[in-house]
Amino acid sequence: MSDGTPPPLDPTLTAMIERMVDARVDARLAGFSAQVEEALARLRAQEGPQRDQASILVFSGDFDRLISAFIIATGAVAMGIEVSMYFTFWGLVALKKQTTFAGKTIEEKMLSAMLPGGPANTGTSKMNMLGMGPIMFKRVMAQNNVETLPGLIKLAQDLGVKLIACRMAMGVMGIKDEELIDGVQYGGVATYLGDAIESKITLFI
Amino acid sequence: MSDGTPPPLDPTLTAMIERMVDARVDARLAGFSAQVEEALARLRAQEGPQRDQASILVFSGDFDRLISAFIIATGAVAMGIEVSMYFTFWGLVALKKQTTFAGKTIEEKMLSAMLPGGPANTGTSKMNMLGMGPIMFKRVMAQNNVETLPGLIKLAQDLGVKLIACRMAMGVMGIKDEELIDGVQYGGVATYLGDAIESKITLFI
Amino acid sequence: MSDGTPPPLDPTLTAMIERMVDARVDARLAGFSAQVEEALARLRAQEGPQRDQASILVFSGDFDRLISAFIIATGAVAMGIEVSMYFTFWGLVALKKQTTFAGKTIEEKMLSAMLPGGPANTGTSKMNMLGMGPIMFKRVMAQNNVETLPGLIKLAQDLGVKLIACRMAMGVMGIKDEELIDGVQYGGVATYLGDAIESKITLFI
Repeated sequence: MSDGTPPPLDPTLTAMIERMVDARVDARLAGFSAQVEEALARLRAQEGPQRDQASILVFSGDFDRLISAFIIATGAVAMGIEVSMYFTFWGLVALKKQTTFAGKTIEEKMLSAMLPGGPANTGTSKMNMLGMGPIMFKRVMAQNNVETLPGLIKLAQDLGVKLIACRMAMGVMGIKDEELIDGVQYGGVATYLGDAIESKITLFI
Repeated sequence: MSDGTPPPLDPTLTAMIERMVDARVDARLAGFSAQVEEALARLRAQEGPQRDQASILVFSGDFDRLISAFIIATGAVAMGIEVSMYFTFWGLVALKKQTTFAGKTIEEKMLSAMLPGGPANTGTSKMNMLGMGPIMFKRVMAQNNVETLPGLIKLAQDLGVKLIACRMAMGVMGIKDEELIDGVQYGGVATYLGDAIESKITLFI
Repeated sequence: MSDGTPPPLDPTLTAMIERMVDARVDARLAGFSAQVEEALARLRAQEGPQRDQASILVFSGDFDRLISAFIIATGAVAMGIEVSMYFTFWGLVALKKQTTFAGKTIEEKMLSAMLPGGPANTGTSKMNMLGMGPIMFKRVMAQNNVETLPGLIKLAQDLGVKLIACRMAMGVMGIKDEELIDGVQYGGVATYLGDAIESKITLFI
């Protein structure tokens, strides 16, 4: 006993005490186990719905608002934020690569003729001045080394921004699948909401 | 001992060991207990403020933006998301059932005469063309089986979407309580913010 | 034994049992310890990114939208919510104190001449009627005891709302630092996104 260590117990007594200790510890821990499991289950459930994700609903087809939407989207994805953009109504113009007239109703043909042919033909929300606004903007943007709108859209696609075209709005605006750029996904309001509810940033532009 | 089970301990010794075990287990668990309680308290506090709730501030009175706002709202509530819509400035038109002039100041009467009489009379944000835009939109929406704007507003109410009219904006726009549909709640910016801070989706339309 | 308390154990036996109990309890708790630590670490990590913070991106320079943005911002800060406002494109007018022309390119001078000189000179998004809209709005707002736009901007600054001017948009709109009010911060899309990702309320106005 010079080292202060007690001598070993009789093995039979040891086994009996071990069993008793384990049973009592298990009983005491049972409640904790449930609490800890609950805490972890809640945490895992919470972490799913709130990742670093941004959801941008693009309603507007104005040149300046589209520039703003794509600068936010490409900036976010560059910061490691997953970005989902949902294009509805006038915003669909950002996804257009061409305008077709075949197989459209009279109303759809009228809408197609009046809507801009694609993102390069959009007007500004203010000071459009029969198209002078966008021209001046593009000049000053080039002087300031800001990417063009078609360039920003291409960049967004290359960086993995999810581009979703609203099926309902495509119907209302008379826009067909073959008029949109490749790589676009199609969805409805549930698709949008599924992304938005998981996003920390939700914008309507 | 043929079954490997140790014989029962002396009852007095058993009682003594049990007391000792319990005391030591309790001491060891005391720290854990506090940690688990803290974790659960934090989780419960967190879960309050971030339910599956969406808050839509409707500033615009444009036909196409209102359509978009109510499609999002009704879609969300159908997915089990609680939805609160707060109507301010031009957006108040969505809640109008009639226009009255009695008891209004000159400015209020002028504003009332110039504002649309209700959601069925709103114009589009683009291509309104003296009212042709909404007519064409309504035709194409009907062809695409999209609900009308008054129909969507009624549906939102039936589904339990909370509709709140901004008191301050009602004052500024000269709109009286009797001009709004039944079932509308009234509130100020604090009402809006109270809902928005608890929402995962916050939109300004 | 009249009080039911068992007599003390032999000290050597007690020490042996204590060591055994502690070892077994520690082994049983080892797994819990890791779980509880994980839960608390996750909670602490979660609480950082989601404070009560609101992020308002002000894109529009319309009088009525600016009024709405600043009423939300000042209301939020009064409720204990940290507010960050990021001004881009037309929204920059809210931060202007004067217009200068010296040292600007032709395009910048043209833009400066056409943009409102400051928040007091902004028009409404609807019913502007060559400036009659804002005048009527201001009269009715005064009758309803609503603060003026310059008053709301001053109040926001006094209440500690963070006002950030978008450097890129300043370049595109030809706006120089000396044209903006004091106390404004300058930043880019990463500044905006850094605030927005930590915010429970994110609006694009």
